[in-house]
Amino acid sequence: MLTKTTRLNLVEQVILQIESLIESGEWEVGKKIPAEPILVVELNVSRNTLREGIRALCHTGVLMTRQGDGTYVSSGSTLGLAIQRRTKQSSLMETLEVRNALEQEAARLSAERRSQEDLEKIRYYERECSSYTASRDMEKYVTADLKLHQTIVESTGNLMLIDLYEHITESIHESITILLSNRFSDELPHNEHSQLVEAIASQDTIAAAAIVQQFFEQLKRDIEREYM
Amino acid sequence: MLTKTTRLNLVEQVILQIESLIESGEWEVGKKIPAEPILVVELNVSRNTLREGIRALCHTGVLMTRQGDGTYVSSGSTLGLAIQRRTKQSSLMETLEVRNALEQEAARLSAERRSQEDLEKIRYYERECSSYTASRDMEKYVTADLKLHQTIVESTGNLMLIDLYEHITESIHESITILLSNRFSDELPHNEHSQLVEAIASQDTIAAAAIVQQFFEQLKRDIEREYM
Repeated sequence: MLTKTTRLNLVEQVILQIESLIESGEWEVGKKIPAEPILVVELNVSRNTLREGIRALCHTGVLMTRQGDGTYVSSGSTLGLAIQRRTKQSSLMETLEVRNALEQEAARLSAERRSQEDLEKIRYYERECSSYTASRDMEKYVTADLKLHQTIVESTGNLMLIDLYEHITESIHESITILLSNRFSDELPHNEHSQLVEAIASQDTIAAAAIVQQFFEQLKRDIEREYM
Repeated sequence: MLTKTTRLNLVEQVILQIESLIESGEWEVGKKIPAEPILVVELNVSRNTLREGIRALCHTGVLMTRQGDGTYVSSGSTLGLAIQRRTKQSSLMETLEVRNALEQEAARLSAERRSQEDLEKIRYYERECSSYTASRDMEKYVTADLKLHQTIVESTGNLMLIDLYEHITESIHESITILLSNRFSDELPHNEHSQLVEAIASQDTIAAAAIVQQFFEQLKRDIEREYM
């Protein structure tokens, strides 16, 4: 009985160690993990414990074993996977409301904390958006738009907020791309982000949050008109 | 090779089935799950597949096997567990900022959508807070305060928002209790929530969100004064 408990705990320790190797980026998503004999030494566990840990991580979707080849990292985060699953049970509108909650707080905190370097990165993506509007390149516009919003969230320095925002955005990436494409199918917008970027630049926290809310109200109306 | 893949997929199917039984509440947290022979029939899988699925869920923390007794549901949600783990890697302030983001959007949506019944429930907890202020019962005050905020979030009807808010709150429950207790150690507040409740009652979405932000700014100042 004691042996059993200890072994289970060892498996859990292996799982936690592997997860932290992945979350720290030491083991990259898409890459093959080291061979079993190396891991047995590195993690200082028995072959059986290691195998059981790897099998459990395969089941949760973090690792993936290819027969006759090896084991690969298939996802960077258990939180990401859990959010992806939760999103599948939710409506797009529910998910967008949660994302909007995070994005508004991010805009407020960005206005408060962004460094000069952050601001330059934000302005870079703003210029990208404008240039794709000029060249009427929808696909690139949508990518630059998503990057702009992501950069604002990153400038808050709140790693938990950044993580949640990115996982939620990733889980509805396709829907967002379709939404933006439909919205701008007639014409790409001119200087859509200038008010938001200026609020962040002048550190006006209240305006920054309010502008994000306005964006979202507009998006909501678009969705209701198109899909409901 | 084909057999191996199929078996893995079956294990994953078992995991998904069990997770949905737990998330739907059919299998309650803390309760023992049905015995192996019953599950083999109900889930229509082999004993080995079932065992491997259960073992994987034990490793992720959703189930827990007690030797010589049986297997119990130890957590209601993989998302909850993932958030709990993520919270441990974050500072309290980071987590509170994320919670504030969700709570502000919840206040706005509650003002928009709350039913008469929701409003009565919100007012019920507001009265509870007042009565514990009068009787100077700190512990009960804190519980009623948390219930009041939870009820507001629930009245949005956005299940993903409710889930995230509750998991995050749960993961820092102890810290929040200590924070509120320290804050009110001299005197419990009178009518602290009346402005928020009135904004929700009169469906003033902007005021509701702004009041939550004010609460949070105050809390932030308290934390900075006490702990930094």
